[in-house]
Amino acid sequence: MKALVYNGPGRFAVETRPMPDLREPGDAIVKMSKTTICGTDLHILKGDVPTCTPGRILGHEGVGVVHAVGSGVTALKAGDHVLVSCISSCGQCEYCRRGMYSHCKTGGWILGNRIDGTQAEYVRTPHAQTSLYKIPAGLDEAALVMLSDILPTGFECGVLNGKVEPGSTIAIVGAGPIGLAALLTAQFYSPAQVIMIDMDANRLECAKRFGATAGIDPRASDAVEAVMKLTDGVGVDCAIEAVGVPATFELCQQLVAPGGTIANIGVHGASASIFLDKLWDRNVSITTRLVDTVSTPMLLKTVCSGRIDPSRLITHRFAFEDVLKAYETFSHAASTQALKVIIEM
Amino acid sequence: MKALVYNGPGRFAVETRPMPDLREPGDAIVKMSKTTICGTDLHILKGDVPTCTPGRILGHEGVGVVHAVGSGVTALKAGDHVLVSCISSCGQCEYCRRGMYSHCKTGGWILGNRIDGTQAEYVRTPHAQTSLYKIPAGLDEAALVMLSDILPTGFECGVLNGKVEPGSTIAIVGAGPIGLAALLTAQFYSPAQVIMIDMDANRLECAKRFGATAGIDPRASDAVEAVMKLTDGVGVDCAIEAVGVPATFELCQQLVAPGGTIANIGVHGASASIFLDKLWDRNVSITTRLVDTVSTPMLLKTVCSGRIDPSRLITHRFAFEDVLKAYETFSHAASTQALKVIIEM
Repeated sequence: MKALVYNGPGRFAVETRPMPDLREPGDAIVKMSKTTICGTDLHILKGDVPTCTPGRILGHEGVGVVHAVGSGVTALKAGDHVLVSCISSCGQCEYCRRGMYSHCKTGGWILGNRIDGTQAEYVRTPHAQTSLYKIPAGLDEAALVMLSDILPTGFECGVLNGKVEPGSTIAIVGAGPIGLAALLTAQFYSPAQVIMIDMDANRLECAKRFGATAGIDPRASDAVEAVMKLTDGVGVDCAIEAVGVPATFELCQQLVAPGGTIANIGVHGASASIFLDKLWDRNVSITTRLVDTVSTPMLLKTVCSGRIDPSRLITHRFAFEDVLKAYETFSHAASTQALKVIIEM
Repeated sequence: MKALVYNGPGRFAVETRPMPDLREPGDAIVKMSKTTICGTDLHILKGDVPTCTPGRILGHEGVGVVHAVGSGVTALKAGDHVLVSCISSCGQCEYCRRGMYSHCKTGGWILGNRIDGTQAEYVRTPHAQTSLYKIPAGLDEAALVMLSDILPTGFECGVLNGKVEPGSTIAIVGAGPIGLAALLTAQFYSPAQVIMIDMDANRLECAKRFGATAGIDPRASDAVEAVMKLTDGVGVDCAIEAVGVPATFELCQQLVAPGGTIANIGVHGASASIFLDKLWDRNVSITTRLVDTVSTPMLLKTVCSGRIDPSRLITHRFAFEDVLKAYETFSHAASTQALKVIIEM
């Protein structure tokens, strides 16, 4: 089969690989039909993710059709259309039983990281019954690829951790796909204001189309002043960090109101400053989270009911033969205006 | 009347001052019977608290007897024995109605800071109905002085914010009066382990008498290694920071388990590092809080029922004439082994 393989920092290629085999009773083999590229894949290609070693097939998102199941899999069968979650969860370890699938002792984020991933014709998915989700008939499967990772990530790490509720004021720092996913799912809870902060004019425009009540380019105006002006000088109930660098995390600390929450989504490669001299008496919470995908069934229902349309995040589509071009497009988002790219097998 | 007055950094003295007057309908004048000194008073004396200007009577803790009430006060009358809360709350502003008394728009921590405080024969207490608590007859009033500040602070900022629950493992960094108050009140919830970390052998001994399951001196053994050994290599569900310097806050980040909470109590004068490169995917929460004293009525019940005995925190007693000696004793706690000192009027 064909697969996109990571061959060490800066090196990747489409290669021919053997079909994956069932190894554990809980495994399934999924014939991929659609996949996508994540910012995390670009981190891997830079050599920033030591758990992902050369020779690994990349990808942790996608939809496909069950090809074969292990002897322990009773809830899925060959031919089922499924969504592949970016998080594999056994459902049985102490972390899974606390809803912390991301810390599953034999799962977590392993696809396209510790084991071969979804940017291939076939993929082996461990803990299939609790890591694959049957897709109801009649849905746009490309849109559902957004439910493998970015929609639950924006929702769980940003909206749920950020305790968004009706009437909340929210600032989302970073209007990339993850920040926009937080924006889309924040609207489940009818916030009063969603202020988007980004340096990319196109992404701010996009955010406004997606429901942001204001867009701030911190190069054009002081972001703290602008947010204070929009919130009667109080700050926001919830500041969502969707970039992953010290400066944006530190900005969130200046935006949050007393009693508010900073919900970190960003993947950070360095430590940052925490202004405890300013925050110690502000009654704030700061949360971190690797997406657990506990909300995937719920998000699937919101797509089925038409409450949200994740296909709005898709800007480009490629055939798998053009996967290198897809990477090129995705990694130059400022010029290509790419949000998420769909790769069709 | 006699009062202890702050006269600028490093300067304070007992002075004769006029009796306070009722100014607002909600005021009461309380004749103080017992007060104490807080670490925050020492910060003021160093010049670290700019809101507290020279000429201010210090003190935000104590018990006394109502001497007079304003026209709006119907729930209290002269002669009532009352506990003075360190936080004044109107009960009516948006913060008070959210239970964030510490951010009350016309209150908060004002006693002995923005207005004259309790280290005096009499004190004016604004918002008396919602900031004074009637003391049931027959209680040890010296013990109740601990309910003005340190007990609710340890409980709300440490135990409640830290989500302590039955079976929890807790590390408390700092075994001073506040850390010990967190230790005492954590036991309401039957945690499995409470590990106390401090460099003072006497305080660690004290913590063990108060119920700590282990005491670690970080100069004698690596605190992170020791905590990991006690928690099967996982870390603690709740790390409580009760010192207020960057090193102890940073230590908490190394102690917390995936899914756990760092509850900051310490008053910080500087920023610290937050190791987001390590924490971003650990599903942790970090909380800050200035005590709201919303738990004061509840804590009063636990003292009435004998569930906790806050008098265990009292190591020294002085008459008001010796208040300067009380300050001397409290500010040299390492040599005097002082926890809380009671000053009797």
